[in-house]
Amino acid sequence: MACSRKSKEQLNMVVKNTTTILKRLRALLKNTTYVTEQIHAYIVPSGDAHQSEYIAPCDCRREFVSGFSGSAGTAVITNDKAALWTDGRYYLQAEKQIDSNWILMKDGLPDTLSQAEWLTKELPVGGRVGVDPYLMSSETWKPMDKVLKEAGHMLVPVSQNLVDLAWEDRPTPPQNPLMVLPDSYTGQTWEDKVLKVREKMKSKNCGAFVVTPLDELAWLFNLRGSDIQYNPVFFGYVVVTKETVDLFIEEERLVSSVKDHLRLNGSSGGKVAVTIHPYGHVGKFVAELVDKVEGKIWINPKSSFAVFNAVPKNRRYVQPSPVTAMKAVKNATEIAGMRRAHLKDAVTLCEYFCWLEKEVPKGTVTEVSAAEKLENIKRGQKDYISLSFDTISSTGSHGAVIHYKPSAETDLPLSTSEIYLCDSGAQYKDGTTDVTRTMHFGTPTDFEKECFTRVLKGNINLCTAVFPQGVKGHMLDTLARTSLWNVGLDYLHGTGHGVGAFLNVHEGPCGISPRVSLTDVPLEEGMILSDEPGYYEDGKFGVRIENLALVKKADTQHNFKNKGFLTFETITLVPLQNKMIDPSLLTEKEVNWINDYHTQVRDEVGAELKRQGKQEALKWMMKETQPIG
Amino acid sequence: MACSRKSKEQLNMVVKNTTTILKRLRALLKNTTYVTEQIHAYIVPSGDAHQSEYIAPCDCRREFVSGFSGSAGTAVITNDKAALWTDGRYYLQAEKQIDSNWILMKDGLPDTLSQAEWLTKELPVGGRVGVDPYLMSSETWKPMDKVLKEAGHMLVPVSQNLVDLAWEDRPTPPQNPLMVLPDSYTGQTWEDKVLKVREKMKSKNCGAFVVTPLDELAWLFNLRGSDIQYNPVFFGYVVVTKETVDLFIEEERLVSSVKDHLRLNGSSGGKVAVTIHPYGHVGKFVAELVDKVEGKIWINPKSSFAVFNAVPKNRRYVQPSPVTAMKAVKNATEIAGMRRAHLKDAVTLCEYFCWLEKEVPKGTVTEVSAAEKLENIKRGQKDYISLSFDTISSTGSHGAVIHYKPSAETDLPLSTSEIYLCDSGAQYKDGTTDVTRTMHFGTPTDFEKECFTRVLKGNINLCTAVFPQGVKGHMLDTLARTSLWNVGLDYLHGTGHGVGAFLNVHEGPCGISPRVSLTDVPLEEGMILSDEPGYYEDGKFGVRIENLALVKKADTQHNFKNKGFLTFETITLVPLQNKMIDPSLLTEKEVNWINDYHTQVRDEVGAELKRQGKQEALKWMMKETQPIG
Repeated sequence: MACSRKSKEQLNMVVKNTTTILKRLRALLKNTTYVTEQIHAYIVPSGDAHQSEYIAPCDCRREFVSGFSGSAGTAVITNDKAALWTDGRYYLQAEKQIDSNWILMKDGLPDTLSQAEWLTKELPVGGRVGVDPYLMSSETWKPMDKVLKEAGHMLVPVSQNLVDLAWEDRPTPPQNPLMVLPDSYTGQTWEDKVLKVREKMKSKNCGAFVVTPLDELAWLFNLRGSDIQYNPVFFGYVVVTKETVDLFIEEERLVSSVKDHLRLNGSSGGKVAVTIHPYGHVGKFVAELVDKVEGKIWINPKSSFAVFNAVPKNRRYVQPSPVTAMKAVKNATEIAGMRRAHLKDAVTLCEYFCWLEKEVPKGTVTEVSAAEKLENIKRGQKDYISLSFDTISSTGSHGAVIHYKPSAETDLPLSTSEIYLCDSGAQYKDGTTDVTRTMHFGTPTDFEKECFTRVLKGNINLCTAVFPQGVKGHMLDTLARTSLWNVGLDYLHGTGHGVGAFLNVHEGPCGISPRVSLTDVPLEEGMILSDEPGYYEDGKFGVRIENLALVKKADTQHNFKNKGFLTFETITLVPLQNKMIDPSLLTEKEVNWINDYHTQVRDEVGAELKRQGKQEALKWMMKETQPIG
Repeated sequence: MACSRKSKEQLNMVVKNTTTILKRLRALLKNTTYVTEQIHAYIVPSGDAHQSEYIAPCDCRREFVSGFSGSAGTAVITNDKAALWTDGRYYLQAEKQIDSNWILMKDGLPDTLSQAEWLTKELPVGGRVGVDPYLMSSETWKPMDKVLKEAGHMLVPVSQNLVDLAWEDRPTPPQNPLMVLPDSYTGQTWEDKVLKVREKMKSKNCGAFVVTPLDELAWLFNLRGSDIQYNPVFFGYVVVTKETVDLFIEEERLVSSVKDHLRLNGSSGGKVAVTIHPYGHVGKFVAELVDKVEGKIWINPKSSFAVFNAVPKNRRYVQPSPVTAMKAVKNATEIAGMRRAHLKDAVTLCEYFCWLEKEVPKGTVTEVSAAEKLENIKRGQKDYISLSFDTISSTGSHGAVIHYKPSAETDLPLSTSEIYLCDSGAQYKDGTTDVTRTMHFGTPTDFEKECFTRVLKGNINLCTAVFPQGVKGHMLDTLARTSLWNVGLDYLHGTGHGVGAFLNVHEGPCGISPRVSLTDVPLEEGMILSDEPGYYEDGKFGVRIENLALVKKADTQHNFKNKGFLTFETITLVPLQNKMIDPSLLTEKEVNWINDYHTQVRDEVGAELKRQGKQEALKWMMKETQPIG
């Protein structure tokens, strides 16, 4: 799924009446049970305490107060005004969803004031602006605090979340049971991971390290959860010191197998001892760390202000977490698991597309029913856990809406006269998948074929690239675009994102995008990224071809300055629809790549389809993988 | 000439005895005639007051005090120690050139202290560190000041340069006469340029704008000088306000034609009035601006601390100069001039290579004599002013030294058994050139041919790229490398730099490099950049193929989101040596490009060679441009 500037585009929406909730919130601004002194404005960010990309329903506070359901946006409420900031992807949606209590602030337009600038105009002298310090990252806090301070105001951490107080039927924070991921899936014990983290801490002279992102927590302990849809994670924090490991999670969530796994049941032999604390105790614990450990305390710059600020400035080591880099490089066991997951996923897609090819001409399949069918098919595979994101099942013009999610209001039937774009992925216990195929169940036009072929050329050009160690993803992005650029076409999203191993489908720190991220690190053997160029003709159709690819050593004749050279191996094994390909636009090398790829699909997916007794899908796959050129 | 991390590699050097000069400098640290209070350390940066890439002999202060002649390095002198910082390119050279008074501090190694860190260890309590505030950019000043302050020390601007006081035979600062560049060369009057600058100032709510880089000053006034070798610039500053233009230059330097040009002779009709002030008055003038103008004062972040600090923080608009962007986009007249310059330059290179082909087999031509011959040939062309940089004339293993400058100590004869790499450029009144050709006057090996051909493929792949408006140079760099990467080869410099129009051969803000510059701007129609991939086999040979290329509109079938698409037109017209090309490594498209290029050389350079009566060179050129494949 295309990663950058992800949006949940929705084409129909309802307006929420926010009069009551705003009234309640405004009363709370003055209620000194919850604020030490009256505050004059309250900021409601869109994220959770872990800066997660996807959030649980209990964390949808900004949506609750404003009615606006997009993935990005911030609400600010003063005594007499309420303003919502969101970016260009969401102007239309926000306008439709917010009621007259709200002012829409269009982020990204030159005349739009920032939240801090707007506040300096609205606040009384010496204004106090409240925010839940767990919901704002330190990166956001600092510049806002600076602007407010310069104008004589203050940004005030309010420990009790005021929205939660005003939210009568707030969903309960999830408390789903955790699952132990055996070493046969992870390839490394959690104790060894902790020891490696300690080595990294030592090399940076750090006495402690605070883990705030949920996927890092899950990865470190070889545990998985289901607190957030599509993301096998669970709410918690961990603090690692030279001697201790303190896990912040409600103890009742730890079923017996998890306690055994963490050696909390008195079993001996553990190399690392874990202590459990209530989730809410993390802030105080981190603040007290300063006197308990020597050296610096390692904090991720994206941490919440609450955690960040618990450590005095001169004790902070503010750098991307060591776990981010460790987790991005998959070990042999994880790679084997990802391959198994992709094989199973390929089986489901062959079954699905075979079924669509039969059913679409009947006119009874819709975007929604198709997505449901696909999910049902996936459920039949071994170790299937859930989807890894909402399936993008889109026909015709909906395919040009990059993150389209079909819904009852927008649902359209699939037909033989339009392109169908399907971007889907699943969580299996052995790995995470994410694949896009673009199909036509009738006869594509020459232009549709040209676009598909140029996107395919980009996909191939990227995944066959050979490059030296040290190259960052942004240096490869252009390779996926030149075939489109040559005729004046392009696409407005990045080309690739990292993918977790039975973890988040969007995983840092690497990506392949024209945008340069300051935290970007060079590509390394063992990383897995998506390769997903596209082309979108507004109001008509969308084309995207997405495979996941493993970074591996390249076998080159020379080895300049002993750098070592890398390339990709495509691990997604799903047929590319031959009828969409215009071979006259392909080089011999590209034709060979496609035929080799389809041979691999025949060999590997063919064997698995046979093993699973899916004869019809096998027949379909064999038809779809005939050599071209 | 490859731009990034430019170094003047010298293979032989002498040690300078610095005992006397250090003694004199240390006495000055305590001499309250020059410092208000004793200072405990003095920093000698390597640049001039305009942060120029090339500097005049009078500004080679760091070399004078330390003996180290490399292009990058900083000297710091305390009462009992002297330390020199330089980077990896220069460790060997610095070790050879500095005497035992000096400690070499290897910048870039993990254990090397920064200047500020080292000073905090060396200084007494409350130490005072002096520096000439004109020689340190504000970007360097600020972080150093911060570290020193945190340790209880102070960075002190010392207005009288102490090195100059101690330097008895310091060369006189250049006072060469200025030259007026007529509108027929510039395509735009200086008055119109000033008016455009004022528009930009207005759009940013700036009441004044201070120009510190010398090439911006020369460009703005359509004047040229020769104060710095190879760079047709002159020392000065200019301050533009809504109503005034104040030029800081010694009035005696302005010959009558220059005064007429600037309408200083009482001639009427000028749209813009200029006032002349002595060069040294700029600091005081800028400080007084604050009370004279409204709005912000626009300062380039690379300005000296002296100029930067003359403006109070709340009045500074610190952004890249508007002239940087205006100058980078060449107008039709400048482009026509650049084409004329390149045609003349191509004539000189045909004459030169034709001569080399005859003379090299005799064994009498050396790197130095060849470079002299080339300079002599160039002198014969109309409007020739000077070289645009030291000619890199290198045979065999010297070709692998990227910025090799031949000297008496290193001079080697050219031969028929080694590759010859020649990177040269000239300043003509109508344009600046920079071209590299790699030739073999005997029989190249298969590996040499393969390297040359892969470098050529990279050159072609970059200059034929089509890309949308908005693309920055770093997004194109990879295109010049993939042909080398595919077999495990690479080169350790950027692929392209901007070039001035009868101005500096290295001109910002754009470049084509894997490194991402924060001040980088998108490529635009009218920009001229070099396209110069290479390959260097240490101790054996170097290959580089460099053309200048003009960014122009691309004629594409589609125009995605109305972005507009761009491509390059190669404006360097010098034959590529056919015998170095292995056609079996080329695609049909590449063969056609080479043949089309050589046809263009035959047409355009052929006509000019004929016009100039250079029959022998014409014959050589026709032989060298025969179709391949």
